[in-house]
Amino acid sequence: MATYSPRLSRLIEALRRLPGVGPKSAQRMAFHLLDRDREGAAYLRDRLAEALDGVGRCPSCRMFCEDGQCAYCTVQRAASGQICAVESPADLVAIENGTSYRGRYFVLMGRLSPLDGVGPEQLGLDLLGRQLAGGEAQELIIATNPSVEGEATAYYLAEMARAHGVKVTRIAHGVPMGGELEYVDSGTLAHAFSGRTAV
Amino acid sequence: MATYSPRLSRLIEALRRLPGVGPKSAQRMAFHLLDRDREGAAYLRDRLAEALDGVGRCPSCRMFCEDGQCAYCTVQRAASGQICAVESPADLVAIENGTSYRGRYFVLMGRLSPLDGVGPEQLGLDLLGRQLAGGEAQELIIATNPSVEGEATAYYLAEMARAHGVKVTRIAHGVPMGGELEYVDSGTLAHAFSGRTAV
Repeated sequence: MATYSPRLSRLIEALRRLPGVGPKSAQRMAFHLLDRDREGAAYLRDRLAEALDGVGRCPSCRMFCEDGQCAYCTVQRAASGQICAVESPADLVAIENGTSYRGRYFVLMGRLSPLDGVGPEQLGLDLLGRQLAGGEAQELIIATNPSVEGEATAYYLAEMARAHGVKVTRIAHGVPMGGELEYVDSGTLAHAFSGRTAV
Repeated sequence: MATYSPRLSRLIEALRRLPGVGPKSAQRMAFHLLDRDREGAAYLRDRLAEALDGVGRCPSCRMFCEDGQCAYCTVQRAASGQICAVESPADLVAIENGTSYRGRYFVLMGRLSPLDGVGPEQLGLDLLGRQLAGGEAQELIIATNPSVEGEATAYYLAEMARAHGVKVTRIAHGVPMGGELEYVDSGTLAHAFSGRTAV
């Protein structure tokens, strides 16, 4: 059975470890890097080395941070008495850019999914529990995604906060701005209806 | 505008240089590597370094090779007097594994596509021309893909070989083995009809 040379085979195998990359894509990536973009390959190698060296997790909010300095765990933010729980770093950045919220965050890095082996421990909920018990926050804002697992996670978080006597809120789900009722799916519409507010 | 920490941003940017990877995928890959698979990230970094160091191109057939040793440019293969032109290293491996052909190869690393800036020079056709002119082969077997660009490339190669008085052949295109006529597309069927052989 003919194959590629050993180093090329190992590079293809290494690229397959990226999420969503199968054997054909990994092959295409390896060919591209070695044939057309060796500079890009060197750049990726150096950026991986640099990130592995310097990027860690904030011990308090679990967001990616560098040199132990978390931009989202400042004294000013702690003073707000609010913690917003999000599923991923991308959600944190979206909230930071799209809203005027300037409190603290807690990045779960996933959602409860027992079948995939993701339980409260993997989401760092013991750490969040200690923060809530320690009186670090007066309000927990739940901003998990409205998927089945996201809802389960939200329910778990709400129970946890209530057990510690902390106020729990959830970001609103309903008809998106600019959306037309006619084209909104029934689940969203039902949610919007039951979550109506007085004007 | 909130963004990720500098090293994380640069890693996401580096991952975007991979073909077929957009901003969202690059972000997902970076999070996965830093959150769940740091070992995989280190493995990829080392494999990239190793491949950049050791993997080159054969000066004769343009296939990827290591330490200047090309497994497909041996004296025995040269003795066959045949050169098979393929578009990519993957095509070479497919022919090597699927057929009993044991002659030499010429890997174009692409196909003629003037709009994308891929001309004869980018495909190394001057090198192939010198090999044909030098009498290194008595037959050029064209195995480019039956796409529009592949056909154009095949036409160009055939003209070149004829100019050097070298016999040109093309691998057969027609109904695939196990295929049913009823479900074969009309282009393939027309090709199979006009390319019928005496039995």
